[in-house]
Amino acid sequence: MKTEKETWKENITEKIISLEKQAMELWNKGNPDGFLELSDEDVIYFDPSLKQKLEGMEQLRTYYEGIRGLVNVDWYEMIRPVVQATDNMAVLAYNHNCTESGKLHKWYCTEVYRRTPENEWKIIQTHWSHPESL
Amino acid sequence: MKTEKETWKENITEKIISLEKQAMELWNKGNPDGFLELSDEDVIYFDPSLKQKLEGMEQLRTYYEGIRGLVNVDWYEMIRPVVQATDNMAVLAYNHNCTESGKLHKWYCTEVYRRTPENEWKIIQTHWSHPESL
Repeated sequence: MKTEKETWKENITEKIISLEKQAMELWNKGNPDGFLELSDEDVIYFDPSLKQKLEGMEQLRTYYEGIRGLVNVDWYEMIRPVVQATDNMAVLAYNHNCTESGKLHKWYCTEVYRRTPENEWKIIQTHWSHPESL
Repeated sequence: MKTEKETWKENITEKIISLEKQAMELWNKGNPDGFLELSDEDVIYFDPSLKQKLEGMEQLRTYYEGIRGLVNVDWYEMIRPVVQATDNMAVLAYNHNCTESGKLHKWYCTEVYRRTPENEWKIIQTHWSHPESL
C-alpha cells in the first residue's frame, strides 16, 4: 500500500516528465513555442554555446527565436529522469541522447519547475551541458 | 520600504550564497568535506568529466574522495549569482571563474538547495558545466 506522500511523488514525477516531453516534441521539429510557453518570466537559461546565462523571458525569447526552424531531431531518448520535488518546486534531471541527420548528440539537462499561484508548473531554470564524450 | 517578501528573498539569497562560498573555500584547497556536509542523501551531481549523473550521497562521496587533495585553486570569482526561491527550495545559478597554477578555468554552476525539516538548507542537485570558451 502506497503512502499519500509516495502517490504524490509519483504524480508530480509523471506530471513534470510529461510537460518536458510535450515541449521537447515541438522543440525537435524546430519549434520553441512549447518551451517558451512552459517557461516563467524570471527564467534562467544556460547551454554550452553561451558565455553567460540568459536572465529572464525576454533574453530567452530572443535566443529561441534566433534558432526557430533550425533544430531537426530525428530521434531522442530521455535517460534515467529523476524528479526531486517539494510542494512548490520540482527539479528534473536527465541524460538526453538525440540524433540529427543520423549524428548522435549527448546532453545532460537540469530543469527546475516552480508551481504558479494558478497551480501550473513553469520552468524557472534550464541548464544544458555535454557529458564526457569518450 | 521593503515588503516582507522582498526582505525574505534578500535573506534567503544571502544565506544560500554564503553556504555555497563556505563550501567552495574548502573545495579550493582540495577538501570536499564542505560540499559533502552540505549535500543531502538524495543528491544528484553532474560535471563534464562524467558520462552519467551521480545519484545519491554514496556515489558522490566516492567521487569526491577520489579527488580529495587534487584541487588547488588560487583564486575564484562567483559571477552574477541569482537565487530563485520558494519556502522549501532555492536554486542558485552563477558563472564561476577560477585559476589553478595561474591557468584560468571557466565554469557555469546550478545548485539546488532544499530546506530540511530541521530548517537547514542542503544541496540536492549540483550541475557544473563549461560556458562557451571562445
